[in-house]
Amino acid sequence: MSAYREMGTEELKKELESLKEEYSKICEADISLDMSRGKPGTDQLDLSMGLFDVFNSSSEIKSAAGTDCRNYGVLDGLNEAKQMMADIMGTDSEHVIVYGNASLNVMYDTIARSFSHGVMGSTPWYKLDKVKWLCPVPGYDRHFAITEFFGIEMINVPLLEDGPDMDIVEKLVSEDTAIKGIWCVPKYANPTGISYSDEVVRRLANLKPAAKGFRIFWDNAYAVHHLYEGEENQDQILDIIEECEKAGNPDLVYEFASTSKITFSGSGVAAIAASKANLDFIKKQMSVQTIGFDKINQLRHARFFGNFDGIKEHMMKHAEKMRPKFQAVLDMLEEELKPTGIGQWTNPRGGYFISLDVMEGCAKKVVSMCKDAGMVLTGAGAPFPYGKDPEDKNIRIAPSYATPEELKEASKILIVCTKIAAIEKLLNI
Amino acid sequence: MSAYREMGTEELKKELESLKEEYSKICEADISLDMSRGKPGTDQLDLSMGLFDVFNSSSEIKSAAGTDCRNYGVLDGLNEAKQMMADIMGTDSEHVIVYGNASLNVMYDTIARSFSHGVMGSTPWYKLDKVKWLCPVPGYDRHFAITEFFGIEMINVPLLEDGPDMDIVEKLVSEDTAIKGIWCVPKYANPTGISYSDEVVRRLANLKPAAKGFRIFWDNAYAVHHLYEGEENQDQILDIIEECEKAGNPDLVYEFASTSKITFSGSGVAAIAASKANLDFIKKQMSVQTIGFDKINQLRHARFFGNFDGIKEHMMKHAEKMRPKFQAVLDMLEEELKPTGIGQWTNPRGGYFISLDVMEGCAKKVVSMCKDAGMVLTGAGAPFPYGKDPEDKNIRIAPSYATPEELKEASKILIVCTKIAAIEKLLNI
Repeated sequence: MSAYREMGTEELKKELESLKEEYSKICEADISLDMSRGKPGTDQLDLSMGLFDVFNSSSEIKSAAGTDCRNYGVLDGLNEAKQMMADIMGTDSEHVIVYGNASLNVMYDTIARSFSHGVMGSTPWYKLDKVKWLCPVPGYDRHFAITEFFGIEMINVPLLEDGPDMDIVEKLVSEDTAIKGIWCVPKYANPTGISYSDEVVRRLANLKPAAKGFRIFWDNAYAVHHLYEGEENQDQILDIIEECEKAGNPDLVYEFASTSKITFSGSGVAAIAASKANLDFIKKQMSVQTIGFDKINQLRHARFFGNFDGIKEHMMKHAEKMRPKFQAVLDMLEEELKPTGIGQWTNPRGGYFISLDVMEGCAKKVVSMCKDAGMVLTGAGAPFPYGKDPEDKNIRIAPSYATPEELKEASKILIVCTKIAAIEKLLNI
Repeated sequence: MSAYREMGTEELKKELESLKEEYSKICEADISLDMSRGKPGTDQLDLSMGLFDVFNSSSEIKSAAGTDCRNYGVLDGLNEAKQMMADIMGTDSEHVIVYGNASLNVMYDTIARSFSHGVMGSTPWYKLDKVKWLCPVPGYDRHFAITEFFGIEMINVPLLEDGPDMDIVEKLVSEDTAIKGIWCVPKYANPTGISYSDEVVRRLANLKPAAKGFRIFWDNAYAVHHLYEGEENQDQILDIIEECEKAGNPDLVYEFASTSKITFSGSGVAAIAASKANLDFIKKQMSVQTIGFDKINQLRHARFFGNFDGIKEHMMKHAEKMRPKFQAVLDMLEEELKPTGIGQWTNPRGGYFISLDVMEGCAKKVVSMCKDAGMVLTGAGAPFPYGKDPEDKNIRIAPSYATPEELKEASKILIVCTKIAAIEKLLNI
């Protein structure tokens, strides 16, 4: 097999014919595969069953500070839960407020509060003619859904190998008073898996926004989600809160994280981390919104892990389950797609996704063909604001939920579809 | 002892002197009592320890529909959790969305969404010059805090023995296009403990609001929180959702409830109930806000109770713990305060509060004197919008958290302070 772009028309036509035959066979088989969402596999969920054995008597449901976690109170979270979330995010517990079960909800609340009440004294966004937002792309569809829901105009910024294109970010943020924030997944980014370099983190921390109340939304969703053992094989990023402090911009960032992909997805603990001034402002709203979040679940998690070493150890068990899944997809791409020269993909050291760029103008077609063959992928365009991939080439692969065998099969289908779409493009069919 | 209003000046002065002596002695003793919040007692929390024994293996964490509750998904709640919450509210499960740990948060979200996005097609509230709200008083301070936070102008409506004064409600709602809602605690109301009569529920369901998107916020917080056994000794209210349907107003109401005072406060399950059209509109926002709430906790609760009989049985165990506490306060009020004729209080058949009206203009003083003596009460005025009791006479008593012995002592202090304040008022001191 040689690179498609070097093939002649006849050779391509022949290849297409054989691929179409293969595709027909796939469609005839009754396949049902899903690589659409970053859901942990059942084997990963089994790792946290110990959560159900944490408490055996009512006396054990007291926090270190003596709070009976079965009753009301403690607005901003138990100390031990703050410590746990701080360890995960790589910051100090005094920067942390612990919330309910999902960091997405915390991000939503943060935007909603800014819309109705502004940010630490800034004009509430609803009173502004226009609010804009920077979106490194490809990125996380659910982030973009939140900003879209509040009528915020999203601006694409290229996500490079080491983070967002900072030349563009610095220019836009310093010039446009309407730009109120930027979405960032700084470590093992969704979907490309890249991590922000120290330089990028520092440049972000040193931004001089024209807008009042500009915030970096730092979704550290995959902070401890390494695929490999040993620090040398793991991405590390700088503590953005510390870097913002050093830069004289202590209030510039909100950091978010949860245990959703550490223990049970949707039944974990989420948190925000920020400067004291930010936290004080947030707590005023929180005190209206709730009496407090689920402390029993906070304590359950803190007890289950014991300390940060417990979390790191636990994450290596996840890595063991995840590695063969990533490998199954990557092996197939390497063997079957690479020689054709019509695809590019990432090989991340952590996180939940592989990002595949097919030939320009082909992503929608590939996803649609896969669907017809019984395989669900994240919608083409989803990793872009308004669901619009300007080059229609990016496909997010989520290898976590299926088995390595299923992933091999799924990758085969994906590759066949990718090839067909590419040849049809080359042949102008 | 005779009624204070019938006493002469000298007699009152003598009584005051003796009361002040008593108060001094109380202050000298190192007392620390709290009747401020409706927190369940530790003995009540012990009733739900079985929640920790629900799951023993991973296969047990599947819902009836086969969902692995440890993973993402199911935006609006498990069927069994919907059924549980529907049973509690006295409605059908198809009317229910199950949320996270607190109904207060659901109410906050509901107001916040209406502010930013309107109500089923109505103009978002932030675009309106003025939004107003009806607040039956005395009521729940945390309700009023939410509407205040969003800049909504609150209008007091008297809460009578059988619900809000409907003549006033009907007139205002039908005339003023700015009135967008009303807070209601229809059963064992916070703080008076009264329940809405069938007539009041029907009149509410038949409201003809001038405002588009007007909603009744029906906080059924104490739906199953009876103090006595036997239906004849329990308050029953009509199903407002059904009454709204009958009235041709199916979308008029949002109902809220949670298990916070059924199992563990702050670690339970909350829900909203409403018409299908309302739920569809809400789910659009929810899908941006979250992937789903804590299904493990939903399943844990549904399994723990089994069915509605399980809940009713469980609530009777609560009642056993609560009755002597209510009785301790009521006995003291009856014995020590009634003869003086300077106080009025409620004797509810359920809920979490006793509402005490002291002499007009005396509530703040009484609460402040109690505080100086080491006893915390809910702030005077708290049960009113903006914390302002126009007559400065209402005090909310929360007897759930302390023991009957402590409550007896606490009531004694409260009564001494109530008497002193009253006499000083009568004597113009």
